[in-house]
Formats: sequence, structure tokens, C-alpha cells
Amino acid sequence: MLRECWENVQRTKPLVHNITNYVTVNDVANVLLACGGSPIMSDEPEDVEDITSICGGLNINIGTLNERSIEAMYRAGRRANELGHPVLLDPVGTGASGLRTRTADGLVKEIHFTAIRGNISEIKTIATGSGTTKGVDADVADAVTEENLGAAVSFAKDLAGRLDTVIAITGAIDIVADAGKAYVIRNGRPEMGRITGTGCQLSGLAAAYLVANPGRSLEAVATAVTLMGIAGEIGWERMLPGDGNSTYRNRIIDAIYNMDGDMLEKMAKTEMF
Amino acid sequence: MLRECWENVQRTKPLVHNITNYVTVNDVANVLLACGGSPIMSDEPEDVEDITSICGGLNINIGTLNERSIEAMYRAGRRANELGHPVLLDPVGTGASGLRTRTADGLVKEIHFTAIRGNISEIKTIATGSGTTKGVDADVADAVTEENLGAAVSFAKDLAGRLDTVIAITGAIDIVADAGKAYVIRNGRPEMGRITGTGCQLSGLAAAYLVANPGRSLEAVATAVTLMGIAGEIGWERMLPGDGNSTYRNRIIDAIYNMDGDMLEKMAKTEMF
Amino acid sequence: MLRECWENVQRTKPLVHNITNYVTVNDVANVLLACGGSPIMSDEPEDVEDITSICGGLNINIGTLNERSIEAMYRAGRRANELGHPVLLDPVGTGASGLRTRTADGLVKEIHFTAIRGNISEIKTIATGSGTTKGVDADVADAVTEENLGAAVSFAKDLAGRLDTVIAITGAIDIVADAGKAYVIRNGRPEMGRITGTGCQLSGLAAAYLVANPGRSLEAVATAVTLMGIAGEIGWERMLPGDGNSTYRNRIIDAIYNMDGDMLEKMAKTEMF
Repeated sequence: MLRECWENVQRTKPLVHNITNYVTVNDVANVLLACGGSPIMSDEPEDVEDITSICGGLNINIGTLNERSIEAMYRAGRRANELGHPVLLDPVGTGASGLRTRTADGLVKEIHFTAIRGNISEIKTIATGSGTTKGVDADVADAVTEENLGAAVSFAKDLAGRLDTVIAITGAIDIVADAGKAYVIRNGRPEMGRITGTGCQLSGLAAAYLVANPGRSLEAVATAVTLMGIAGEIGWERMLPGDGNSTYRNRIIDAIYNMDGDMLEKMAKTEMF
Repeated sequence: MLRECWENVQRTKPLVHNITNYVTVNDVANVLLACGGSPIMSDEPEDVEDITSICGGLNINIGTLNERSIEAMYRAGRRANELGHPVLLDPVGTGASGLRTRTADGLVKEIHFTAIRGNISEIKTIATGSGTTKGVDADVADAVTEENLGAAVSFAKDLAGRLDTVIAITGAIDIVADAGKAYVIRNGRPEMGRITGTGCQLSGLAAAYLVANPGRSLEAVATAVTLMGIAGEIGWERMLPGDGNSTYRNRIIDAIYNMDGDMLEKMAKTEMF
Repeated sequence: MLRECWENVQRTKPLVHNITNYVTVNDVANVLLACGGSPIMSDEPEDVEDITSICGGLNINIGTLNERSIEAMYRAGRRANELGHPVLLDPVGTGASGLRTRTADGLVKEIHFTAIRGNISEIKTIATGSGTTKGVDADVADAVTEENLGAAVSFAKDLAGRLDTVIAITGAIDIVADAGKAYVIRNGRPEMGRITGTGCQLSGLAAAYLVANPGRSLEAVATAVTLMGIAGEIGWERMLPGDGNSTYRNRIIDAIYNMDGDMLEKMAKTEMF
């Protein structure tokens, strides 16, 4: 699965339309180029339908949403749905403000998402339509642990079934689920949380994997999540004394650039649950 | 002072709401994570009151202001004032355009700022409500030097008293003053001016220090300024032949990530004036 | 030519107003600082006329255009024309959407551009007012090769003559032309295409070179294109095993920071065609 999904990205060089936040957008673009894909960014309502039409898929991230970009999300999402392009939602900070919660909720009701990726607090807010997220990081009380893993997997499968999507809950332990199956992934490092936007980068990556692997959405997203985690491990191994989160950011993107199918297969801690 | 302020940030992990420019926003986010805090960015008027409410403090930077974000600055600023959160203003380029000067002036009149940080030209514009800044860098004619330091400190104290705030004037020599006391800080390196956004990064850092050190605003800002300068020195020591401003940017953020209270105390060139 | 243009930038430290996309804006700012210039970013219609007035030149990039920033492009462009400042257009993705094509076309009709820089697909769209660009990268079918180089140079000269501008078509082989003369530049590396925004960075650089070299627009742009290509070669030589596109980005900007006139003259593969 991992090698095949990876090879499909190398072979097809998927073009991804991103409506994303201005905080981490440069890293999202460089990650898409690193993984073998290609990024376009556009969030003007009058521009997005044309742009999404020439792309293979759409990545919607609400990290710095505004009235203009929200309209763009709806218009691009509808068009991508019409064209049968995969669409991914990254509901950054849903639950942390009324506008974010309403926007994520409204998008999920009107657009069919191929996948939704967030931290556990964000995905819980997606499930209930309301939430009390404490910012853009997951609430500690919500965290997926070895103890509550079974319940979290059931929750992810149920939500995936209800929304006819793939749910990716990422954190110390990652869960990627559709209605019937789930992968649990234990790659990655806690220090990735000290870099802004590793979640946003993963969402861009997952969108590229969805485009390159049609009809295999669960496997595509699980591979992207595994790849990001492994890149975090390889990047960390290359850290020198005095290096910190800024260098780590570069090292992770570099590791994605230098990844190959063998490394992915060898380092993966990905299991069907 | 330095160690204690630093430890309070590590212990409390302050969450800072940033309404900031899209040029340097990623570095501001990574600096906040590097220093032990956590960033949220939001500049949509309908979003900012909710977001600022869940944070500990607010950092307003007018570097790429627009009509929408200006409204967001007022709404977030008022709410933060109501909640008693510290609010910092970085009046980027005030004096360089009518809109920037009017915006900074209007914000200072309506919002109570816990601290205002800028270069000498920007702070002079804050003081007079008009100015002739030649861009986003300080005018050479304005520069704080050993010769005019006494006058500059008096100016900073007077302005701090008049606006009931902490004034931080940063440049080759930094001044941090309230109405009664001032710190003069001689850390840092001139090459920091060849990286975009070291000032913006410092403002984010200072906001985190204000949140974590309630009731000690002068000390909080002086510690943040000292920390940034020391990080610039440590980062420079790690430069290799062929490295330039892009690598230096990474090294400075890395140095903030790896800072500790001992290093801060040992390297500080911070004195009460 | 190369050394003199380079020295003029070091000596005059040109201040460039950029209305550019939020994807690569930070790198554009750092490249401008690296090359010896200074950046200001502003895209609010009420702000841009003041800002462009205090700068030496204007760089308009439509990479993430929106209704507000399009108005700002017109207003800043007109003012820069009135003041006799050089203005550069980077028509990112023109041909890929109706809005981008209309905007680039409208700007070219109303604003006099000192130079227009894009990939071959974008420049073809500029020439015809319509296009079918497949994103922000050039269409492979359009690529300038040794075989079609003569025709491409003629096309560039004709378009330059018709629009009274300098046309820079960048790719594996770069062409910089005015109505009468053309330079062909064979510096650079293919891996530069795996970094987001090397084109945007080059446009910022070229704007700085135009400001510092009045009356020598063709030479200024040809020098900037040569410099960027050489920086790509020097940056690549410094890559270590495990480094990828994120580190390469830093190395290129670092190489611009450390460039000197001798290196430029020695490494240039720039010839009059």
C-alpha cells in the first residue's frame, strides 16, 4: 500500500488547489513540491472555480479564514464536487470561535469531503457541530492514548460513515478511518508540535495523495500520514546541537523530498486496527 | 529578573493572538513556539473577539494592514482591554503613509496598550501623531547612539508616562521604558537588520512575555528584547562560510528554542539607566 | 555590465514596493534584503499610493490576487508611472484563470511596465491576451529549447517592442529582451523548480536592479536573472546528503547575500543573442 501510493504520486505529479491560511502557506507549497506534486494557491471567489478546474484536487484549510475566503471555499468546493475531484478539509481551530465552528459545519453540510484531517478536538467539533477548542492545538483532555484508542477508532469510523469520508485524527497516535476500516499510525515525534503548520503541511500532502490514488482514499491518507511521521523522524535524526524548531522545519520538508518507497515501507509503524 | 521572566513563560506556555502582517507571520508563529508559547492568527472582524477571548494576550502589527484587518484590530483590542489581557502594538511603517499613521494614532487613542514596540522613527511618529518614516526601517538621522542616549531615554519615559504603557525602541541600542524606569540593552547584531521581520518576531515574543508576567510589564518586555538580542548573537556564532540571511533567520529562531535562564543571565547586556 | 549593475545595487540600496502573493512574500522580502535592497509590502488601495511614492520602484505579482489587491495594483501602478519609477509585472498564472488573464491584460494596457517577467506560458498569454496555462508552472509543450531558441528570442523582442518594455522569459534557458537586443542566460539548475517562488524572488530582485540602474533596464534585468541562476548553482554546491528543497531555498538566498561582482562575472553564462 505505502509504496504503491507513493509511486503514484511520483508518477502523476498531482496538482493541488489550496485555499489555506497565510501563516503556513509557504511550507504547504514547499511540501507539495517536495512530495512530487505541485501547488496552486487562490482564495479569491472570482478566481477559484477556474483554478480548481485545472487542478486534480482541492485542499481547504480554515486557519485564517475571512469572509472573502469563506465564499471562495464554498465556490471551489462545489465546483470540485461537480468535477469529481477529491476535496480535503482541515478545520483549523473549529470549536475555538463561532465563525470557525459555523464555517466548518456549513462546509461539511454542503460540500462532500473525501477526507477531513484535524486534531482530536477539531474532529470532535466536526462530529457535534459545536466545541470548546482551546486554540489551534488539541485539548490535552481529548488526547488519543493507548488507553482510549479503541473508543477513538470507533468514533472515527462512525463519523467517517456518517459523513461518507475518510477521517484523519492526528496527534501522538494517528488514526485514519473510513466507515469499515482504520489504520493506526505511531510514526512522528512530539517535537513536530513545536513547528507551526505541520498539520497544514500534512493536509496538503494528503490532498496530493488523494489525487494520485483515486478510489483508494483511505490508503492514500494513511500513506500521507505515515510519510509525514517518518519525515519527522528522519528530520530529527539530522538535527545538530544548537538546532531548534526552525531548522527542524527545513529538515522535515527535506526528508519528504528525499523519501523513497523502501524507506517508507521499512520505517512505517502503520497497522490496521 | 531575566531568569524569572523566562521561567514564567516556560511554565505557563502563553497563548498569544496575533493580528499581524502576511510577510513575517510564519516566523512570528515559529518564534512564539520556540520561546515556549503558542500562537493563533486571526484577522477577520467576525472571528477576532472569540479568538482573543481564549488567548492570554494580543499582538497587533500593522505591517500589511487593510480595511478589514484594521477593523479587526479595533475589535480585538477593545475586547482584550475588557478582559484585562495585555495588548502590544507594533506600528510597522507608521509615518510612511497616511493610512498607517492614522491607524497607529487611532489605535493608541482608543485601545490601551500594555506595550508599544517599534524603531525610533515609528515611536517618534507615535509620539507626535505624524511622521516622515522612510519605509519600514528607521531613519538613520533618528538613530539612538551613545551620544543622544540620555535624551532618547527621557523621550521614551515621557511617552510611556503619557500613554501609560511600556515603550520599547529597538535598534543598535535598545531602550525599554515605563514612566519611571528604563532599561538599556546592548545585545544583538547589526546583521539582524538584513533579515525581514526580526522586529515582528520580537513583538510576538514580547507579547508572550507580557502574558506570562502579569504586573511586571517593564521587566517582561526588557527580558524579551534581551532574549532576542542574545539569540541574534548565538545564531551568528553558528554561521558557517557561505551562510547568509536566510540561514541566519533559522539560527536565531533555533537559539530562542534552545535558550535557558543561565544563558540569558550570563550573556545579557541589560542595565537600568 | 554585470559587475556595474551589481555595484549600483550595493551602493544605492534600492527600496522596492511589492504587491505580491502571500505564498512566497517572505522569501521575496529576504531576497531583497540579501541583494542589498530593502522591501516594503502593501496591498491596501488606501495605502499603496503613499507607500509607492517613498520607494524607488514597484513589483506587481498577481500570484494570489483578489479584488482589493487588484485595485491596489492599478492605483500603485499609475502613481509609479506618474513618478517615473520602474514597474515590473510578474503575471503569475495568467492563462490559468479568467480573472488572472483579465487582470494581467488590463494592467499591461493601463500601466507602463519597465519589465515583465514570467515563464514562457505566461508571457505567451501576455502576448495574446488569452491562454491555457496549466497552473503556475510553464506548459512543457511551450518550453524554450536550443531548437526553438531563435524563434523564442524573436518573439520576446517583438513583444518587448510592442509593449515598450523588457521581456524576461525564464526557464531552463532564460531570455531577456528589449525591442533591439536580447540576452540568453544559461545559469541556474532544474532543481530550482522544486522550490516555491524562485520566480517571484527573481522578480523582486529584478525590480531592485531596475531601481538601481536607471536608463539601463535591459542590462539590469539580465543581471538579476544571471545573479539568480548563479545563486542557484552556488546554493546547490553547498547541499549535503539528506538536504532537500527547503534547505536549498535557504542556500540560494544565502548565495545572493554573499555574491560579489567577481563571482558574478566569472560564473555568468550570459550572452548577447
